[in-house]
Amino acid sequence: LAFRPLPVPQVDVRGFWGDRVDAVAAKTAGILYDRCVEARMLEQIDPDRPSTGVVIPFHVSDGFTASTVTTQMFWDSDWGKTIETAAYSLYRRRNPDLEKKIDAVIDMYGKLQQEDGYLSSWYQRIQPGLRWTNLRDCHELYCAGHLIEGAVAYFQATGKRKLLDIMSRYADHIADTFGPEPGKRKGYCGHEEIELALVKLARVTGNQEYMELAKYFIDQRGQQPHYFDEEARARGADPKDFHFKTYEYNQSHKPVREQDKVVGHAVRAMYLYSGMADIATEYGDDTLKVALERLWDDLTTKSLYVTGGLGPSADNEGFTNDYDLPNETAYAETCASVGLVFWASRMLGMGPNARYADMMERALYNGSISGLSLDGSLFFYENPLESRGGHHRWKWHRCPCCPPNIGRMVASIGSYFYGLADDALAVHLYGDSTARFEIAGRPVSLVQTSSYPWDGAVAIEVETEAPIAFTLYLRIPAWCRNAALTVNGKMVDLDAATSDGYAAIRREWRRGDRVELDLEMSMARLFANPEVRQDIGRVALARGPLIYCVEETDNGGGLHRIALPRTARLEARKEPNLLGGIVTLSAIGSRAEAKNWGGDLYRPEPPAAEETKLKAVPYFAWDNRDPGEMLVWLREG
Amino acid sequence: LAFRPLPVPQVDVRGFWGDRVDAVAAKTAGILYDRCVEARMLEQIDPDRPSTGVVIPFHVSDGFTASTVTTQMFWDSDWGKTIETAAYSLYRRRNPDLEKKIDAVIDMYGKLQQEDGYLSSWYQRIQPGLRWTNLRDCHELYCAGHLIEGAVAYFQATGKRKLLDIMSRYADHIADTFGPEPGKRKGYCGHEEIELALVKLARVTGNQEYMELAKYFIDQRGQQPHYFDEEARARGADPKDFHFKTYEYNQSHKPVREQDKVVGHAVRAMYLYSGMADIATEYGDDTLKVALERLWDDLTTKSLYVTGGLGPSADNEGFTNDYDLPNETAYAETCASVGLVFWASRMLGMGPNARYADMMERALYNGSISGLSLDGSLFFYENPLESRGGHHRWKWHRCPCCPPNIGRMVASIGSYFYGLADDALAVHLYGDSTARFEIAGRPVSLVQTSSYPWDGAVAIEVETEAPIAFTLYLRIPAWCRNAALTVNGKMVDLDAATSDGYAAIRREWRRGDRVELDLEMSMARLFANPEVRQDIGRVALARGPLIYCVEETDNGGGLHRIALPRTARLEARKEPNLLGGIVTLSAIGSRAEAKNWGGDLYRPEPPAAEETKLKAVPYFAWDNRDPGEMLVWLREG
Repeated sequence: LAFRPLPVPQVDVRGFWGDRVDAVAAKTAGILYDRCVEARMLEQIDPDRPSTGVVIPFHVSDGFTASTVTTQMFWDSDWGKTIETAAYSLYRRRNPDLEKKIDAVIDMYGKLQQEDGYLSSWYQRIQPGLRWTNLRDCHELYCAGHLIEGAVAYFQATGKRKLLDIMSRYADHIADTFGPEPGKRKGYCGHEEIELALVKLARVTGNQEYMELAKYFIDQRGQQPHYFDEEARARGADPKDFHFKTYEYNQSHKPVREQDKVVGHAVRAMYLYSGMADIATEYGDDTLKVALERLWDDLTTKSLYVTGGLGPSADNEGFTNDYDLPNETAYAETCASVGLVFWASRMLGMGPNARYADMMERALYNGSISGLSLDGSLFFYENPLESRGGHHRWKWHRCPCCPPNIGRMVASIGSYFYGLADDALAVHLYGDSTARFEIAGRPVSLVQTSSYPWDGAVAIEVETEAPIAFTLYLRIPAWCRNAALTVNGKMVDLDAATSDGYAAIRREWRRGDRVELDLEMSMARLFANPEVRQDIGRVALARGPLIYCVEETDNGGGLHRIALPRTARLEARKEPNLLGGIVTLSAIGSRAEAKNWGGDLYRPEPPAAEETKLKAVPYFAWDNRDPGEMLVWLREG
Repeated sequence: LAFRPLPVPQVDVRGFWGDRVDAVAAKTAGILYDRCVEARMLEQIDPDRPSTGVVIPFHVSDGFTASTVTTQMFWDSDWGKTIETAAYSLYRRRNPDLEKKIDAVIDMYGKLQQEDGYLSSWYQRIQPGLRWTNLRDCHELYCAGHLIEGAVAYFQATGKRKLLDIMSRYADHIADTFGPEPGKRKGYCGHEEIELALVKLARVTGNQEYMELAKYFIDQRGQQPHYFDEEARARGADPKDFHFKTYEYNQSHKPVREQDKVVGHAVRAMYLYSGMADIATEYGDDTLKVALERLWDDLTTKSLYVTGGLGPSADNEGFTNDYDLPNETAYAETCASVGLVFWASRMLGMGPNARYADMMERALYNGSISGLSLDGSLFFYENPLESRGGHHRWKWHRCPCCPPNIGRMVASIGSYFYGLADDALAVHLYGDSTARFEIAGRPVSLVQTSSYPWDGAVAIEVETEAPIAFTLYLRIPAWCRNAALTVNGKMVDLDAATSDGYAAIRREWRRGDRVELDLEMSMARLFANPEVRQDIGRVALARGPLIYCVEETDNGGGLHRIALPRTARLEARKEPNLLGGIVTLSAIGSRAEAKNWGGDLYRPEPPAAEETKLKAVPYFAWDNRDPGEMLVWLREG
């Protein structure tokens, strides 16, 4: 039983997510386009202009051979994600100027595409002749994947199929080039992405060959003889001269079904698992499912920040050791949390399970949208859980993968709300919104009224033309200590109705049926597994799905000097005029006094403590006011 | 009134330091020679062999010009320190084989020296023609300085003057090349060292010109026009193409008398301040003294580890920001703590002051000798205050400055015990030992009987042939809560007798006079200034001059999970069979339980705590048993 997300245009969001989407539509989408142009990306893809040549110097060398990698190689992917963000934004809010610009970009890609369908601005314009020579390092199929995702989104949002057709031709060419058949290359991309993109393309075009190709890339990954070894030798390089030393970096160290540790580059890992989950869903492939469950366990019990951030190390933009979760130096790339949302949402394709949906919600409300300023104009690449005051949002980044990634995720948030199966609808996320879908060919709409996540009361009205039987699955989040559910005013026995964290209501739904779910917005102190040495003796504050942090602007400097007694009462307060309207948490804590300490650096007497009122704001909203320190994990004591 | 250290051969140490010196004499000295030979250093200095060429690749480039720096450039300094270590070791313990080898090295330097006195194996054998073209980066005078120190030590220990004569000729050449006179270069070395070396040379030869040259190098440092700017332009380079960006790196950002922050490369800073203190002492130069006091304040109140380690960052091998003292990533190079011992001991040249002597003792007993294994065979370059189990002693290091530096310091420890003035002797350090010196031309000897630092009882017998009047200064350490002093059994009123942390006893001393000092070996919890965010909520244990740490081998893994309640009683216990005989500290603490935590990475319930007995050993002795975790700053609670 496969649950598929609703296409973005079928879900209108309001409230919390409505504000976020509006910011993307009003600001981010246009900014992405402008920054791409400023970075000279338009010149690269436009066959009517002279080639720019190498604009961004190579930064990785392939051993003793040549320069290999520059972020300029990924510019097609930046276009792909920018198109995708623009697409969802255009659906949200008409913008003829932006639409014209994107149409022009698409026209350029149309002109650029070769006779055989091949399409890469880098390999056609900057390094001609090197096509398919270095899948390990050069993101060739990754770029194709992002353009495919852009094409699907632009088609869904605007109805225009030009880019979809372009990318279908390119996908056909890729299918002719790679595959199990004799004479085809046995390769796959060093940076996973095309797998999940091909699934999207298959779903929107109905062409199962794309699904097959996605499955091939997944099945082939990590098989022996190793493609990246052979490819390196074919271009005259020593396979050992690999900048990142181990194929764990790109999750090709062994076949995917044998993998049991989340390793390497975090974004690549998330994209791979997302593709695997899609294929597991589409093919009912339990061997993939088992591997995914193992990997999920590994990530969520050993290597995930409490914010839903992941990949602590800047060195490999990825994972290190179990329980190694440094806060100040956390890399926790925005793209990685976005990738976790992708993966979690696709695990839900195999059926409603709050294990995945709770974590999707955690990453959505915290470590991913922290990457976008409230007004949609500034970006985090890294999302540390502690800052001494030097970490601030960027206008852009030398490797601009995160801005369009968070842009497209936010703009497509509606598609993460629901999973639709043949005779079931799962509600994964709550929030003021309207969804339209069909069950058994008949239109249904579902209206959520709620001020979630600030308040846990959710009213859901089902509208159908005629009565229709289906199961409505409602997530009961694990963080919620008390939940109550009524259907048309009649209490549902939640214990009996709930399995895997979802309450299932099967009935013949009629126009005006009303479901009321009351989720207690519990405040919580969260403690980390004592193996996490960076969080020992510390506590994080949460309310509902939101993780909180303290900022210097509310609490003064020297946040490390604050301690929160275990017995201190937490107070939640709605502050409509703060940060676009949030609920803050406050408590009476203590602060080690620095000013009367005296001149010694060390002394036998402990510092004096003074009472202090601390105020915490949702982590996603930090660094939207005066710059300063920030801290998630407060000292206990 | 200048207090000068006693030459090494005039102080015999026993007990704690006797064991350390014996390890250096028995093992380290020979190991240093062998490793230098293995590294091909002998080939470089031997004019009868072909040049090795560049053995260690250049690792710093001078902007867009040529490769500039390789550690191979400093090989003369490694020889200098190796000779110095060997010299003191030969005094301690005859070793004809080693002496023959060192004599051969000296013969090679004799042969290598040019007609004009110049002597640099690098610039004569590897980069001829580039002499005096890059003082900023290339350690040319630094190498001279270390060879001078080696020459002085070898002369003092063996009576052989050959190297002393060689280095005097070289010093004459340097004095002809650099100085205020017209036609001479207005330069100084990017890595300070020659200043303090020339003071030693002046003291041992009685040639005041060397003192004047040392003073010139100090006075000239940081003056405008800036020598390193002009030197760079003279070799066709842009002065801005400086790898370390700022002249703070080598403390030439402004004239030394205007400096008020301890900045840049930590070892360079310590060597500079050492030379400044020598010149302040020799010239009675209060303008230098005032600057040194400012710098001392800055270091000891803002940037010093509790172990006497310094320089937290690997990037510049030096200082970062005030109160930035990360424990696990602490660079805290062994050489830097050795340098602090040098500086502190030279501040005592201006008179007894426990402010300096206490810190000298702190660095001696902790952050410096931690750099040498108990058996004298293995070395730390970095001395972190926390290790997850991956930090271990090296046989050697690509930049082998630390092994001979800690070797020479330990082997010359006797010279740090006392300061001798015209009619006064200051006892800076306590420990079983015998010192011989002259006051007013008459021989005096002073025998300390003590098992310091394990016990604070110190008996001092003065032996003179005839009665002689002088002041005996005895340090009363600040860490000592109760001290009692008797002379020939008669109690001395310590409050009245003590100033600047030293009790002064002026009398006519006679053979058999006996001073008894009883220093309570206080155990202490030390707290860091709350501005040090890495130590907040943490406590370090100390007993007397020793800082303690916990090791995995005594306490099991997961040291971060241990907490020490503020009320827990500390117990000291002599353990004669542990680590060569030490006093351990133990207490009942608690440990956050990891094994029953369950599968969640985060949860609302705090971890359970179990009672645990923790046992701490002196920091200097860590990593001498089974490899594992180590922690200085224990969590409180």
